[in-house]
Amino acid sequence: MSKLVIVGTIAFDAIETPFGQTDKILGGAATYIGLAASHYSVDAALVSVVGGDFPQNHLDLLTDKGLNTQGVEIKAEGKTFFWKGRYHNDMNTRDTLATELNVLADFKPVVPESYRSAEVVLLGNLHPLVQLEVIAQMTDPKILMLDTMNFWMEHAWEDLLKVMAKVNVISINDEEARQLTGEYSLVRAAKRIYEMGPQYVIIKKGEHGALLFHKHDMFYAPALPLEEVFDPTGAGDTFAGGFAGYLAQNKNYSFENMKTAVIHGSALASFCVEEFGTKRLERIESASLAERLKQFKQLTQFDI
Amino acid sequence: MSKLVIVGTIAFDAIETPFGQTDKILGGAATYIGLAASHYSVDAALVSVVGGDFPQNHLDLLTDKGLNTQGVEIKAEGKTFFWKGRYHNDMNTRDTLATELNVLADFKPVVPESYRSAEVVLLGNLHPLVQLEVIAQMTDPKILMLDTMNFWMEHAWEDLLKVMAKVNVISINDEEARQLTGEYSLVRAAKRIYEMGPQYVIIKKGEHGALLFHKHDMFYAPALPLEEVFDPTGAGDTFAGGFAGYLAQNKNYSFENMKTAVIHGSALASFCVEEFGTKRLERIESASLAERLKQFKQLTQFDI
Repeated sequence: MSKLVIVGTIAFDAIETPFGQTDKILGGAATYIGLAASHYSVDAALVSVVGGDFPQNHLDLLTDKGLNTQGVEIKAEGKTFFWKGRYHNDMNTRDTLATELNVLADFKPVVPESYRSAEVVLLGNLHPLVQLEVIAQMTDPKILMLDTMNFWMEHAWEDLLKVMAKVNVISINDEEARQLTGEYSLVRAAKRIYEMGPQYVIIKKGEHGALLFHKHDMFYAPALPLEEVFDPTGAGDTFAGGFAGYLAQNKNYSFENMKTAVIHGSALASFCVEEFGTKRLERIESASLAERLKQFKQLTQFDI
Repeated sequence: MSKLVIVGTIAFDAIETPFGQTDKILGGAATYIGLAASHYSVDAALVSVVGGDFPQNHLDLLTDKGLNTQGVEIKAEGKTFFWKGRYHNDMNTRDTLATELNVLADFKPVVPESYRSAEVVLLGNLHPLVQLEVIAQMTDPKILMLDTMNFWMEHAWEDLLKVMAKVNVISINDEEARQLTGEYSLVRAAKRIYEMGPQYVIIKKGEHGALLFHKHDMFYAPALPLEEVFDPTGAGDTFAGGFAGYLAQNKNYSFENMKTAVIHGSALASFCVEEFGTKRLERIESASLAERLKQFKQLTQFDI
């Protein structure tokens, strides 16, 4: 079975949406990515850090999904990363109400020995220096996929450029692509990003779907139009996890296969937003996923 | 050859974009719709009104494209409708700098006798009462398609509801769909719009493409990602014209055929924005259109 390395936060989130609010629930980029990737025939390892306050049942949930947590350091004396946010009525914008780095502040990622030969590595949103340390531990990666956000553009620009120079695939949202390149047109932004390193550029547009660029090829995956977006938290990570999981399973890194991978990521993300946090992701059955993939087909296919 | 009736403005536009500005150039909903529809094997008649200041060469342009202008009244003593607008840097929002109704103020549309049996009627953006008068003159329409905008929601709500109750297809943008229904989710908005009359709902999302809804079916057509949007004026009308022209040509009003019609509209709109006003639309060759349709296919098709 193909191996997949996932680095990112494992966290507590507290979320407020127009529909309600949660106490500290399971969250973090690596959590969402891992739960999404667990739908594919891959041997996926999470590389992250939590504090002594992190409940065993959350870790059990991850291992029950077949995710390897050997690379999840537990700092007994520390506290788990915490994020609190509030979504506006449009569900497209949010305010961060609290960010407590805690054990993340001095996180040194260690990829378990037996996963260092993995072909696919997903560098979830984290400090670029942490992402670089993971890259340095891999022996022969074929796909290094970077997920990042505007925070690092503003606070760790030089380090971010170093990671970008090393990866093949980047996944960012439309506003971040514009901020990164100074280009409003996403076609132009993608071309500028090629010059920074990644040969494949995924630009996420929330409810408007996602674009995949490679050289002169483009692919447009819609988001599934929904009656209700209950909680968008983790949708981007879920998308990335589905994409990387599908790619790793097939070990086919062609543009054509990446198109299908983008649809898998979009389908999983469409589940993610249906309930608070990871709730819906935790119980997607493979028949439901297959059904949703068919909906994407119907949504986009036409004769000319 | 199938007949198509198009009602809408024929106008002068003065446009400012970040790329430059124009004097009074040929514009108007019926103009863009007609130029788009002229790419199909349909006998299309324009129903509109212009003033004595409207140059013969503009009318010649329309007739040279095979459009019937018998229903375009020329009020020699009046002035042609004039709109002036300025686009912001993002090209998605604009300010209206001037609107002079002129001859439109007391426009009584007359559909030429020989076109009253047309199966497809496109009611371009105009006062709902004018649209109603056109509907009343048709003998056996199969597709009444309404294009409208927020202005009429604010200034002629009751009349707009009357038109909506009579049409099968409506084409509006996302913000207008939300304003019309009070629903943020476009899926819910479409359902509310069904209750107002139209069985087919097209929601245009500018650079994010367009959605087609019918009962529980949905179709998502992307907009072609472009390096540069030079002038968005008329893109929505061009979209509607391509959609209606394709439908009328085939006389096939199934959801499946409407999906293809949406792609045709999107392809023509992608040309429209490449130059100021109608310039690019005036010289689209059929090979270029076929090539662009193929690009839409490549942009959206995938295997699962």
